[in-house]
Amino acid sequence: MPSKIDLSEYIIAPHPTREDLSRAVQGWDQTGQPIVTHVVEERPLTIFLNKREIVTAMTIGDYPEYLALGFLRNQGMLALDEEVTAIDFDADIETVVVRTMRETDFEDKLRKKTRTSGCAVGTVFGDMMEGLEGVQLPETEVRSSWLYTLADKINRTPSLYLETGAIHGTVLCKKDRPLVYMEDVGRHNAVDKVAGWMMSERVQAADKILYTTGRLTSEMVIKTAMMGIPVLASRSGFTAWGVEIAQQVGLTLIGRMRGQRFVCLSGNDRLIRDIDPAAIPQEPKKHRRKGAHG
Amino acid sequence: MPSKIDLSEYIIAPHPTREDLSRAVQGWDQTGQPIVTHVVEERPLTIFLNKREIVTAMTIGDYPEYLALGFLRNQGMLALDEEVTAIDFDADIETVVVRTMRETDFEDKLRKKTRTSGCAVGTVFGDMMEGLEGVQLPETEVRSSWLYTLADKINRTPSLYLETGAIHGTVLCKKDRPLVYMEDVGRHNAVDKVAGWMMSERVQAADKILYTTGRLTSEMVIKTAMMGIPVLASRSGFTAWGVEIAQQVGLTLIGRMRGQRFVCLSGNDRLIRDIDPAAIPQEPKKHRRKGAHG
Repeated sequence: MPSKIDLSEYIIAPHPTREDLSRAVQGWDQTGQPIVTHVVEERPLTIFLNKREIVTAMTIGDYPEYLALGFLRNQGMLALDEEVTAIDFDADIETVVVRTMRETDFEDKLRKKTRTSGCAVGTVFGDMMEGLEGVQLPETEVRSSWLYTLADKINRTPSLYLETGAIHGTVLCKKDRPLVYMEDVGRHNAVDKVAGWMMSERVQAADKILYTTGRLTSEMVIKTAMMGIPVLASRSGFTAWGVEIAQQVGLTLIGRMRGQRFVCLSGNDRLIRDIDPAAIPQEPKKHRRKGAHG
Repeated sequence: MPSKIDLSEYIIAPHPTREDLSRAVQGWDQTGQPIVTHVVEERPLTIFLNKREIVTAMTIGDYPEYLALGFLRNQGMLALDEEVTAIDFDADIETVVVRTMRETDFEDKLRKKTRTSGCAVGTVFGDMMEGLEGVQLPETEVRSSWLYTLADKINRTPSLYLETGAIHGTVLCKKDRPLVYMEDVGRHNAVDKVAGWMMSERVQAADKILYTTGRLTSEMVIKTAMMGIPVLASRSGFTAWGVEIAQQVGLTLIGRMRGQRFVCLSGNDRLIRDIDPAAIPQEPKKHRRKGAHG
């Protein structure tokens, strides 16, 4: 029997019972019986950098400040050493304004950046690649026993996913300990919220592992590299460009993690297989994420 | 035993063996054994409307013309009766230009639209809601037996998903027959490609059903309504705003379809339960989409 989840390991755990993050909706099941089911909230949040409107994200709405900060950082719009003087969130008008000491002179560049971003297609790229020039991630070792333990803990942690489905999770981990577990309707928001938290708390990235429920696309790999995290692991699959970029920046990329199985397509030399996969139990059916992937 | 899939039912079926859509990559499995695995391609496509650059989408790259046309239509940038004079795709510079008879006068509006779109977060909204004002979808009946048959056929149809994972599918259907099955790394691209095909072929929407592997977010519901399709079904779950918009425009919204189970959260009065769910076999394990949901 798996042990009970120790939620005290988390610095930030999901909050599946928070009332403003999901809603009870009346519906009907396959037999025509009326039912009440919970569905996740999805609301707009418009992010400003100083005076400039940058983007409107669809989010569940927790941690708007981390989301704004992380989004701007992962887009290369905030330097790592940028002095952020204030982050003002206004719930009524659904906006968050990130203010910096230096007036950002990005104006024209930003316009191009956001215009060429993959709106409506779930990905961003293009100029984002610029931020990666010369990036080489640290040669941090990762143990397969940590990955198995993390996957098991994360799958069993009470979450909005387990309550409502239709949401993605991203977890910042250190060795076999999950630290910060963010969920969001946009899978990139979950990553950006982790990035915003790391920036706020000035957290080291070199000894961390990022675990995501989403696919390992180019954008997910770019964001992880922008955050300086050397290991990215997922239940889901890969895209060819995601693999290419991971190899280029020296990111250890592990996907299709299910029970004892996984595939490593980049940075395999830093992965220490310290446990026999046969010792890992099959994934219990109820912990499987059964929706489409993405 | 389920019968063999009749691919001749499809007007467009997936092409899992097309060489330019996936790539063999060298990797390592959990035991450290070298393996070769297939991963899906992901490449940029920049869409122009006449002289204006609109967006760069990340796509597997099949059907760039349908993607461009459907994207512009679903964004409300092309009226239903807009006369498209040419669609020019240039593979070398990864662009597609949609030309219209009337010079579009959207210029300033478009700039706002794309700037406020949910780049990097997988959703678009805001001005898109404008296109929905006054939309009321036709009162088309849908039978539960069709939905079960469609889900079974679609799950068993050879696809890039079954080959490589990490890809979404959207299928245009009529009664229990799947007609056009599009796949893409961006789940919205798959829908947009269906929309582009419908526009090109001047296909009636009122008698169609749209099936998607992705979540039923606000954006997915808005796109389906923009296409005039009265029924949207998915394996995945719902967001609250997706449900709200579906109720507003009269869309029949069915989610969490797995084996004999499903949930209807909008338009239940048009859903005829003509088969006993107990007669439907459990979903075979190998047809489950096991990644995270997206």
